[in-house]
Amino acid sequence: MPRLANIGCLATCANPAGQDDIGLIRDAALVWRDGTVRWAGPATALPAEFEAEPALDAGGRLVIPGLVDAHTHLAFGGWRADEFADRLRGRAYLEIAAAGGGIASTVRATRALEEEALLARARQFLSDMVSLGITTVEAKSGYGLDMETELRLLRVYRRLDEMGAARIVATCLAAHVVPPEWAADRAGYVRLITERILPAVAEEGLAEFCDVFVEDSAFSAGEARRICERGSELGLRPKLHVDQLSEGGGAELAASLGAVSADHLEYVSEAGIEALAAGGVVGVTLPLATLYLNQAPPPARALIEGGVAVAVATDFNPGTAPSYHLPFAMTLACMRQRMTPAEVLKGATRYAARALDLEGEVGSLEPGAAADFAVIDAPDVEHWLYHLRPNACVAVASRGEICRGVLRRA
Amino acid sequence: MPRLANIGCLATCANPAGQDDIGLIRDAALVWRDGTVRWAGPATALPAEFEAEPALDAGGRLVIPGLVDAHTHLAFGGWRADEFADRLRGRAYLEIAAAGGGIASTVRATRALEEEALLARARQFLSDMVSLGITTVEAKSGYGLDMETELRLLRVYRRLDEMGAARIVATCLAAHVVPPEWAADRAGYVRLITERILPAVAEEGLAEFCDVFVEDSAFSAGEARRICERGSELGLRPKLHVDQLSEGGGAELAASLGAVSADHLEYVSEAGIEALAAGGVVGVTLPLATLYLNQAPPPARALIEGGVAVAVATDFNPGTAPSYHLPFAMTLACMRQRMTPAEVLKGATRYAARALDLEGEVGSLEPGAAADFAVIDAPDVEHWLYHLRPNACVAVASRGEICRGVLRRA
Repeated sequence: MPRLANIGCLATCANPAGQDDIGLIRDAALVWRDGTVRWAGPATALPAEFEAEPALDAGGRLVIPGLVDAHTHLAFGGWRADEFADRLRGRAYLEIAAAGGGIASTVRATRALEEEALLARARQFLSDMVSLGITTVEAKSGYGLDMETELRLLRVYRRLDEMGAARIVATCLAAHVVPPEWAADRAGYVRLITERILPAVAEEGLAEFCDVFVEDSAFSAGEARRICERGSELGLRPKLHVDQLSEGGGAELAASLGAVSADHLEYVSEAGIEALAAGGVVGVTLPLATLYLNQAPPPARALIEGGVAVAVATDFNPGTAPSYHLPFAMTLACMRQRMTPAEVLKGATRYAARALDLEGEVGSLEPGAAADFAVIDAPDVEHWLYHLRPNACVAVASRGEICRGVLRRA
Repeated sequence: MPRLANIGCLATCANPAGQDDIGLIRDAALVWRDGTVRWAGPATALPAEFEAEPALDAGGRLVIPGLVDAHTHLAFGGWRADEFADRLRGRAYLEIAAAGGGIASTVRATRALEEEALLARARQFLSDMVSLGITTVEAKSGYGLDMETELRLLRVYRRLDEMGAARIVATCLAAHVVPPEWAADRAGYVRLITERILPAVAEEGLAEFCDVFVEDSAFSAGEARRICERGSELGLRPKLHVDQLSEGGGAELAASLGAVSADHLEYVSEAGIEALAAGGVVGVTLPLATLYLNQAPPPARALIEGGVAVAVATDFNPGTAPSYHLPFAMTLACMRQRMTPAEVLKGATRYAARALDLEGEVGSLEPGAAADFAVIDAPDVEHWLYHLRPNACVAVASRGEICRGVLRRA
């Protein structure tokens, strides 16, 4: 039974409640078997039965649950650096989109790639993410926007998950925007989603969730309702992109649809916060997207004080968040969303897992949870997120196997 | 005579004028000898005399001048992660400083360290910085605030420079704040600086510049004038921390003192911008400090449009900018200061060199300049700064020697 010893500071994130309760244990030990945590606690309290086991040495460092990135668009074709420069010269995101750029541009580049090419790209991103301490990744389709390419993207995610570098949780985002060829028949595209794409996704077991981008430039509340209700019938629980670019009652909609999470929330209203809290919907904040779009951040403090569990994710995508650096997004959540380092860690572990309906399975280090953990070169969570470095993660374990870095025998 | 071939995109930054003119050459080659650039241009125009030389292969990537970090506080004791968390809970920077935290806390920790311990820490930071593509670093004292420790810090910088990992340009910042033991006798501390510390620094040749933090909580304009005039007499040209936390005519003061740069500038006035432009003073912006302090960014567009050369640096220090990740600061300068990637690159190379009085020696790839360059895994500058990664730099040369990464023979 492998064991990690000499943990200077262990954040178990074992408590479901309390945004800033990360279950800190100083001078801790962690024991696992068959990829699953068996025991976590103070080293002095290590049960005798585990003492004889071989131990790895955490070097007195911080150990956290493997990070959970609860919102990415991991597989896509092309890049959009040209639009980044255009936006800096003052061109609005929606103006770029209206001219055929934005998501539509990535859709063209994605449709042009075969499954193997999409897999190779996404696999490299995922490898880099694991090096940062990320062991679970939600990954959305949404750059296909036709039956064939949406399924291709979701098959890429299934294959990535099977490869085992990290756990992949797939979401069907066929309702990302209305693709150009359906511009004159929005209802037809919604029917394509509800009558053909979602049933095919469900039949092949390709996704856990169904997502809709609810925005003037994308889908209306009524369209989102039709899509999510159909998804729910098929066993695909809703997640929603809401209140990102304008206040549109998106959080309330997410709660009314029983969504597991409401994502973005820059413009969430007080009523929206109440609805999320009452519905137990996780609020997923995406500090990189907020920064790249030069927006005011979502009201994270009001969400937390209103009783909403707040997650922090990257939104990795080639347009508005071209970075998979979740620890950097976490530091941003401190600086711009005024969350404490502990609150942010909970938001990128246990509450991110909650946003994927995986709470207790990943995102925490407690008996029965996956032995996914990261060893961080810092004495505590505050130091880690304050001293922003290229990568402070020195070792990663996925299902109890050390997959990055080398830990000495204790 | 070594040569770099197969450069997809070379940014020479050879033109002194034009914030966004980075001297781009597609499909370029670069030739150097004895650590100095001999030729840079399109591969098709390579003079025959250089063709027989052995060449390294840049792999079709972006090549830039080695980055110049024009504002750091590289050597210090301790960290201040606790204050980071305190600020997130709403405590003001100046309130923390008034309670003995802030700079004074780092001064205590720095005074407690021997020269070897300070050197070991700074050397590790510098090594990480070189890996990011940085080959020249300005480094300030200012955490000693007594004769002995200020000189100790500057000797650390001289030793670091002699070690050769990167070029170090030292600045005496004895006028960082008034240390607690001089609180009742500010004039006495100013005399200590002008009559003892600066002369000793000049006599030992330990610094190029003399710096003053001009702010209500630090030094007045009158005090700064006395210190800088004395520095100038001794051959230490002024650099100034100005207009960071409040508008105080700091930019105008910098221009009137013949400063080589005015740094921070969050609150610079229109008159200040005019004075900087008229005086040829470089405006050094520090996006990490702005972000960590949750401030509105300096008016970079107004500075550029007003004719000021704008540099971008890290301000690496343990309080308000605990990161030496200059490429990240550069991406932030795009997103928050609305500078284009080309403008930012000029600001972290040629204009940063100008802020150190080293223009044409470092920060550009033109005949006679140092053969300091970085190979970046990106097709162009826009893609590099848009696709934020832990570290996109794959190889670095300092004085013509490859000191990070491996380049194949072409």
